Amino acid sequence: MRTRAAVALEAGKPLEIMDVNLDGPKAGEVLVEIKATGICHTDEFTRSGADPEGIFPAILGHEGAGVVVEIGEGVTTLKPGDHVIPLYTPECRECYSCLSGKTNLCTAIRNTQGKGLMPDGTTRFSMLDGTPIHHYMGCSTFSNHTVLPEIALAKVRDDAPFDKICYIGCGVTTGIGAVINTAGVEIGSTAAVFGLGGIGLNVIQGLRMAGADMIIGVDLNDAKEDMARKFGMTHFVNPSKVENTVQEIVKLTQRGIDHIGGVDYSFDATGNVQVMRDALECSHRGWGVSVIIGVAPAGAEISTRPFQLVTGRVWKGTAFGGAKGRTDVPKFVDWYMDGKVEIDPMITHKLTLDQINEGFDLMHEGKSIRAVVEF
Amino acid sequence: MRTRAAVALEAGKPLEIMDVNLDGPKAGEVLVEIKATGICHTDEFTRSGADPEGIFPAILGHEGAGVVVEIGEGVTTLKPGDHVIPLYTPECRECYSCLSGKTNLCTAIRNTQGKGLMPDGTTRFSMLDGTPIHHYMGCSTFSNHTVLPEIALAKVRDDAPFDKICYIGCGVTTGIGAVINTAGVEIGSTAAVFGLGGIGLNVIQGLRMAGADMIIGVDLNDAKEDMARKFGMTHFVNPSKVENTVQEIVKLTQRGIDHIGGVDYSFDATGNVQVMRDALECSHRGWGVSVIIGVAPAGAEISTRPFQLVTGRVWKGTAFGGAKGRTDVPKFVDWYMDGKVEIDPMITHKLTLDQINEGFDLMHEGKSIRAVVEF
Ligand SMILES: [Zn+2]
Ligand SMILES: [Zn+2]
Ligand SMILES: [Zn+2]
Ligand SMILES: [Zn+2]
Repeated sequence: MRTRAAVALEAGKPLEIMDVNLDGPKAGEVLVEIKATGICHTDEFTRSGADPEGIFPAILGHEGAGVVVEIGEGVTTLKPGDHVIPLYTPECRECYSCLSGKTNLCTAIRNTQGKGLMPDGTTRFSMLDGTPIHHYMGCSTFSNHTVLPEIALAKVRDDAPFDKICYIGCGVTTGIGAVINTAGVEIGSTAAVFGLGGIGLNVIQGLRMAGADMIIGVDLNDAKEDMARKFGMTHFVNPSKVENTVQEIVKLTQRGIDHIGGVDYSFDATGNVQVMRDALECSHRGWGVSVIIGVAPAGAEISTRPFQLVTGRVWKGTAFGGAKGRTDVPKFVDWYMDGKVEIDPMITHKLTLDQINEGFDLMHEGKSIRAVVEF
Repeated sequence: MRTRAAVALEAGKPLEIMDVNLDGPKAGEVLVEIKATGICHTDEFTRSGADPEGIFPAILGHEGAGVVVEIGEGVTTLKPGDHVIPLYTPECRECYSCLSGKTNLCTAIRNTQGKGLMPDGTTRFSMLDGTPIHHYMGCSTFSNHTVLPEIALAKVRDDAPFDKICYIGCGVTTGIGAVINTAGVEIGSTAAVFGLGGIGLNVIQGLRMAGADMIIGVDLNDAKEDMARKFGMTHFVNPSKVENTVQEIVKLTQRGIDHIGGVDYSFDATGNVQVMRDALECSHRGWGVSVIIGVAPAGAEISTRPFQLVTGRVWKGTAFGGAKGRTDVPKFVDWYMDGKVEIDPMITHKLTLDQINEGFDLMHEGKSIRAVVEF
């Protein structure tokens, strides 16, 4: 079949909107009509050429929602008409990692997905001249239709609006999941969130859901404060306005006579390795847990003195918020429909596919929290 | 009173054995006759001048066992004749950290202890000419008698031999505690231990106690293999004999068709920051936990790509094996007396106080696992 897609022809160039060929689903695969897709920083990381593992030409996009059109041979858990959210972290429930019960990082299709291919080592997309087009993060939601493995689709309820729940395909789950799955924040905790963009806001609402007492937001841009407070932030620190951000957070959290200060949990949502260090070092001696969410530039490394860990801080990271996609994503959709998770104020812009490059501009200009393309 | 002690007069010099003055215990303090003390790498770190926070003159030593001679005003949990192990990590059971239940890093006397002073800001030791001598890690076990706060003494059973249980005051508890308290290793786990000195051997026996299936020891010295196997090591890797230590460990742990390899738990007992990185990176994607035990040189930093953490590895550290001294140390002594914990083969040398500098020589030459001074 033919479908319409935004294609990344080469690194650093705007996406080109064009008709492309799409082969139908093979065994274990599903053809999905994408109804809406968010534009995420990770798409831009690859589009811009900053991602050393970026492959071109490719159809980017990994934060979508849509409807099953056709299923391949052997697909048993989905049928045409089902509403679905594509999963860049699949959940096969059969690999060593899935069965471990200790991680969401399913390895079933990791190798081919990393190469922009379907599990059989080929692509379903091609140019009208026959040139293959690579898949992206196993999703390629910047296309009106796409093909995914059955294990990379979460079936969700029919009454949830696509233009909102597409955000659960990445940002919402990553931010909230970092709090509830990776960090395991308890009621009454103190926390600091570095970076108040889309991910940071979702970390903040995750902390509010988890019952944190003190939610300190950190951002160089004062304009971020209002929205963050709406999502639950209780204190704001602008690093450009204090002498030392770590010390400022330690001071804010000193309570009681012998309380040395520091947050119970900290989160980096900036991708800046120096900020990741600050996030670790402002966490509490003895038990502070610091979670890296942001994607760092290629080659960048985090550092600290080992003493920071020897004195009881824990450094960890999260991918897709530690969520098991097929199991947890439908739950996030329920939470949104129940009003437990807020999404609407974060969808700041709606675009057509033809306007998709404007979405990247809005991101660069810091004007959008999330721009969503509707088909 | 007068007592005999090995005094570190200045950085880099051998200890000098001499008579010193020792004031009796003030309120909340206890006078202890030290019966035996181990010589630990941390003592050497300070003696040599490598420790930027080293203070001189001081009486070093922090791995001792002895008998209570006299108690100060208000001391209620100890009486003369009690057998005790000094604790460089006290347990006050009243500070914010103790009450958190989340850490063993009691902060009650942290500030004065770090300055080589008793909690009231003075020293009990002095030269015969009156010059104050600093305490060390709150213990100063290189003296036949020493004074400690009540909260820094673990009361232990009377029938345990001092020349063995002194090692529980640091090395044994640090190594085994890293496994059972900090890492929380489960039965059937795979693990790698970097550095097969005294701490590494205790990590290995901790892993055996915890029921690990695969215990990989890593050391540049082949001569360490035999002893490590006696304590439970199942596989040995000499980094100088393989192309890539991380890859070698990944290969050893690949089991099953899709098992990507890596250990469930890794431990650095070397203090080398590059080794700390290898230890992290050989741990399993998705859930590997790497624990830093070794003390790094001043200013040294650990580094890695944040991707290592984002893909599910956890980096942490341990001090005194996460053990709460007054609560856990008596239990370790019981375990030794019950044969659950082995110590005897690790006490390779016995010395008198006059021979203490030979103990440091043996350590440098790699001839001793632990040299113990008996009074
Ligand atoms: Zn994303
Ligand atoms: Zn799987
Ligand atoms: Zn020690
Ligand atoms: Zn305490």
